[in-house]
Amino acid sequence: MPTPPPAPAPLAPPALSAADLQAAADRLSPWLPPTPVLTSRSLDRIAGRRLFFKAEPLQRGGSFKIRGALNAVLRLDAAQAARGVLTHSSGNFAQALAIAAGLRGIHAWVVMPEDAPAVKVAAVREYGGEVVFCAPDQRQATADRLREQTGATFLPSYDHLDVIAGQATCGLELLAQVPDLDAVVVPVGGGGLISGVALACLHRAPAVRVWGAEPLGADDAARSKREGRRLPQPDPRTIADGLRTALGVHTWPVVRDHVQGIVTVGEAEIVAAMRLCWERLKLVVEPSGAVSLAACLAADFPAPERAGRVGVVLSGGNVDLGALPF
Amino acid sequence: MPTPPPAPAPLAPPALSAADLQAAADRLSPWLPPTPVLTSRSLDRIAGRRLFFKAEPLQRGGSFKIRGALNAVLRLDAAQAARGVLTHSSGNFAQALAIAAGLRGIHAWVVMPEDAPAVKVAAVREYGGEVVFCAPDQRQATADRLREQTGATFLPSYDHLDVIAGQATCGLELLAQVPDLDAVVVPVGGGGLISGVALACLHRAPAVRVWGAEPLGADDAARSKREGRRLPQPDPRTIADGLRTALGVHTWPVVRDHVQGIVTVGEAEIVAAMRLCWERLKLVVEPSGAVSLAACLAADFPAPERAGRVGVVLSGGNVDLGALPF
Repeated sequence: MPTPPPAPAPLAPPALSAADLQAAADRLSPWLPPTPVLTSRSLDRIAGRRLFFKAEPLQRGGSFKIRGALNAVLRLDAAQAARGVLTHSSGNFAQALAIAAGLRGIHAWVVMPEDAPAVKVAAVREYGGEVVFCAPDQRQATADRLREQTGATFLPSYDHLDVIAGQATCGLELLAQVPDLDAVVVPVGGGGLISGVALACLHRAPAVRVWGAEPLGADDAARSKREGRRLPQPDPRTIADGLRTALGVHTWPVVRDHVQGIVTVGEAEIVAAMRLCWERLKLVVEPSGAVSLAACLAADFPAPERAGRVGVVLSGGNVDLGALPF
Repeated sequence: MPTPPPAPAPLAPPALSAADLQAAADRLSPWLPPTPVLTSRSLDRIAGRRLFFKAEPLQRGGSFKIRGALNAVLRLDAAQAARGVLTHSSGNFAQALAIAAGLRGIHAWVVMPEDAPAVKVAAVREYGGEVVFCAPDQRQATADRLREQTGATFLPSYDHLDVIAGQATCGLELLAQVPDLDAVVVPVGGGGLISGVALACLHRAPAVRVWGAEPLGADDAARSKREGRRLPQPDPRTIADGLRTALGVHTWPVVRDHVQGIVTVGEAEIVAAMRLCWERLKLVVEPSGAVSLAACLAADFPAPERAGRVGVVLSGGNVDLGALPF
């Protein structure tokens, strides 16, 4: 006899209030103007629904990550700020924290593995961040030691309420820019962005369904939702390098309680969706950023009658153009 | 003894009034929302000035051309409209006219050379246009014959006052979006876009200088300005395929009288500027569209003190992605 699914957990109270999200929006608005929403009739035809693309590649730093990083940096008190901030990341959060620290005029240390791509290291430095290299398996240990030495505040790339509140501003903007959405589709990695967007919808537009989009090769959120408990992502295999992480202790309850479902997509679908973004939207989107469009085009995406007007968050555009033929 | 330069011609009265331009803006606004203006601190650093990028790749059809095409189509009276419209073009105007005709619900014939790229033919058809093939040297003759057969109105891609008035809305938008510009830089092919933008500045913000940007391999505008008379472009050689045309009888007097100067750039500079647009702005820009940024980065661009805040029109993004490695 198959095991019955676990009884659903009771809904946890939302991690952040409507006032928390509004405070983040107010805090960020002098620094980050809203990103545009793009549309394409040809993509609408392909998808069989109206799609509204939230263009986070056009965000400062080339991805949504600056929202959470800057909100967390601006929330520090003066004494904390004076000692600087610290993270470990080889992805978009590394650049975002360097930018955010620069905007507040404080120091940022970014721990990166020795084998991090040179363009990512250069980008952090260009924004004024100090890169500290470590062995690939020593990231947290190196960050812990640096924190002890410097007194800097450690900011994780997604599993932190101030970071999630910052990412929520992406959802608040989209809801203000596009009325009467039926659904929003968001790429899922560590879950910072989708948690923020889900909380924005919960507080501002509870009828809007939020769907996650995840690579089949890094589907911890889909598996966690199915099993009703947070599962790790031991061996991610996907071109979508920003989505190789697993949900965290703060993001999991929000995904569990306020995200409708997770649509998983294959690698070929991710690449095809990325190409459609470049071609039809004229927007350079990285693989992780296009997973949401791939989900909208997937056979198992909820039928049009359940989602005729869909917000599609394209989360970032930091792709290495080195391989381009020009 | 060197020949002295010709005496400057007296300024011709502007081809279009402020009211003409405003009427075009009012006519187009229900159909074409303003395109965004993008900025990049890293490009500002490279250029040594503040750059404000008018993102026409995000325009309907992927370039500014729909502005002029739709304005001309909407200006037809009912009897003319019923007989349809007609052009010859293998570039962005072909698609734009097909879209514009579709919006008004009328027929569009597009004469294209037999060797036109398949993607361009497919795009015109996707928008509902009827493609009529001809020998490469029979474009005008074929169009003339079609006009006699069908009674359709021939609309040229740039040398027409209604088309120029439509393109002017790009300039009107930019002036409304970015206050206190010192200059605007615009790619120059047939001169429809730069004429429109120059007239927009003349009527709305006469202190704003308008500069043209042209490939060295298709520099008829630069040569025409130097000689004070309209010169042909017999043998254009440039990757910027949208700029291989020469100024027309309507666009030349505007360029002569209301454009500050033409900056010419080499092929390597055009490709480098295109790459910067993709990398730093996350915007897919075609070679012709990036010539304006190339001009801003050129050694002979007017010094910063003369142009500290510069509008840069990125005119289109219809590049064939077939060669991309994904």
